[in-house]
Amino acid sequence: MQTTDRLAGVLAPVVTPFDRDLNPDGARLVRHCRWLLDNDVGLAVFGTNSEANSMSVAEKLDLLAQLVDAGIPPARMMPGTGCCALPDTVALTRAAVGAGCAGVLMLPPFYYKNVSDDGLYRSYAEVIERVGDERLRIYLYHIPPIANVPVTLTLIERLLRDYPGQIAGVKDSSGDWDNTRAMLECFQPDGFDVFCGSESFLLATLRAGGKGSITATANVSPAPIARLYRSYTDADADDQQAALDRTRGIFQNYVMIPGMKAVIAHYAGDPGWARVRPPLDECSGAERERLLAALAEVGFEMAGLG
Amino acid sequence: MQTTDRLAGVLAPVVTPFDRDLNPDGARLVRHCRWLLDNDVGLAVFGTNSEANSMSVAEKLDLLAQLVDAGIPPARMMPGTGCCALPDTVALTRAAVGAGCAGVLMLPPFYYKNVSDDGLYRSYAEVIERVGDERLRIYLYHIPPIANVPVTLTLIERLLRDYPGQIAGVKDSSGDWDNTRAMLECFQPDGFDVFCGSESFLLATLRAGGKGSITATANVSPAPIARLYRSYTDADADDQQAALDRTRGIFQNYVMIPGMKAVIAHYAGDPGWARVRPPLDECSGAERERLLAALAEVGFEMAGLG
Repeated sequence: MQTTDRLAGVLAPVVTPFDRDLNPDGARLVRHCRWLLDNDVGLAVFGTNSEANSMSVAEKLDLLAQLVDAGIPPARMMPGTGCCALPDTVALTRAAVGAGCAGVLMLPPFYYKNVSDDGLYRSYAEVIERVGDERLRIYLYHIPPIANVPVTLTLIERLLRDYPGQIAGVKDSSGDWDNTRAMLECFQPDGFDVFCGSESFLLATLRAGGKGSITATANVSPAPIARLYRSYTDADADDQQAALDRTRGIFQNYVMIPGMKAVIAHYAGDPGWARVRPPLDECSGAERERLLAALAEVGFEMAGLG
Repeated sequence: MQTTDRLAGVLAPVVTPFDRDLNPDGARLVRHCRWLLDNDVGLAVFGTNSEANSMSVAEKLDLLAQLVDAGIPPARMMPGTGCCALPDTVALTRAAVGAGCAGVLMLPPFYYKNVSDDGLYRSYAEVIERVGDERLRIYLYHIPPIANVPVTLTLIERLLRDYPGQIAGVKDSSGDWDNTRAMLECFQPDGFDVFCGSESFLLATLRAGGKGSITATANVSPAPIARLYRSYTDADADDQQAALDRTRGIFQNYVMIPGMKAVIAHYAGDPGWARVRPPLDECSGAERERLLAALAEVGFEMAGLG
């Protein structure tokens, strides 16, 4: 088995900018990725917060190529590649591996509900077999509040046993610390890397041996989250976590994706950044002003954007 | 506005056969569609029971072309075209309209949950505007148990007001008769055609002025369901409905898609028909035998298959 550097730290599910016609805007995306990297945050492009499932496979392949062509390092990338349809997941995963991405974040197929672990096992196994590349590193994506289809501990155990080289870890967006802790206890000792899905759990995850966080808020507040990752054994770690929680709490009063895009649009001086694809709704002007005011109260800033 | 014959009666969300490599099998699909038409059932290809969301857009475009090339009449077809991503929905819808299909069945984008009616309105409106074809007839697909994203009465009202030519009706798979009745009372008088999502509600739907049913079981038991549609004012209509309910009740003890495929495989003498794509699981041999035995007890048969 080929050894590669494993991803660790804080990654952002990078929000996707759209142009006037609601087409993905590669140039704006490249700029945002560079800013995130400058702030020590990796790139989980095509995640839930990227509106990835609102884009076609062709659009995602094109954006990935634009990022790589622009010199964004694939070693810092974990693109989301899990779709409902097996051939779509295979196509995106193959492209990500071919581009040299350090890993892929893979939703289970999410249309059918109450499917069996057997069926989900075969979904992941088919992708691994069809991609057929030893460089493949899969991070399973457990996000029951949105996908409604869970990645259970028994599924992880079975996949990890049969594909120890390919099953690299998990993003746990359950919001349930008991579940994250169980993943950490059961599988992190085997080199299965656990990332929490919100920086609210960053300190707890790191103290329990986890590898970091893949979190929406890293799109708008990368530096403080990445700082806690680097300094979580410092004396002020709990204070840092409390500060992260305050900022997160403000964003969570709004719909996360349009809220973050409105904030980026404001700080970048680029109103077009606020666009979302349907079925999401752009922030209203009043919502945006309230959100910005609440953020100003906790000293929030975004420097060096755009 | 161009006038076209509106779809009515019983349609099957046609199950999709797969070959050994799990690729869609156009030849088997054409045969099954012909058998359904011979039994007076229309073709809602690419529905939930078709594993449509387990197929790529390219696979569906290819199957649609194969059906049309084989002489399957588009006037009897209502392909499912609703995907998570706007460009995918537009591409499939455009192809269906271009092929002359009588209508399309359109899921709302179903990845994000708890989205607003505003966002869903814009999703449908964007598709209508981008397809930009007066022949387009959209049947909204309300299936909250699986999509988790509902098509509410207020959303229908707004779409019907703004796009009366394009919004043609609904398939209500809520399983909630109060909801179907509300759709019938509110919108059927305006020419918005209500199809129930299970033949369990066929008689009630027709008596309340609805147009028919788009129902899984029509894949395996088309003739008796179509007969009730044609003869629902006859004296034996309630007895016919009771007989349909008995057959439906048997299938509902199994996972519907693999169960129906196992039954088709048996009666067609073609074991390959039983294949499903992950995340679904094929029926076990024991399940299949129990299902076939239960069906035999109510005199179930499939004649002239394959």
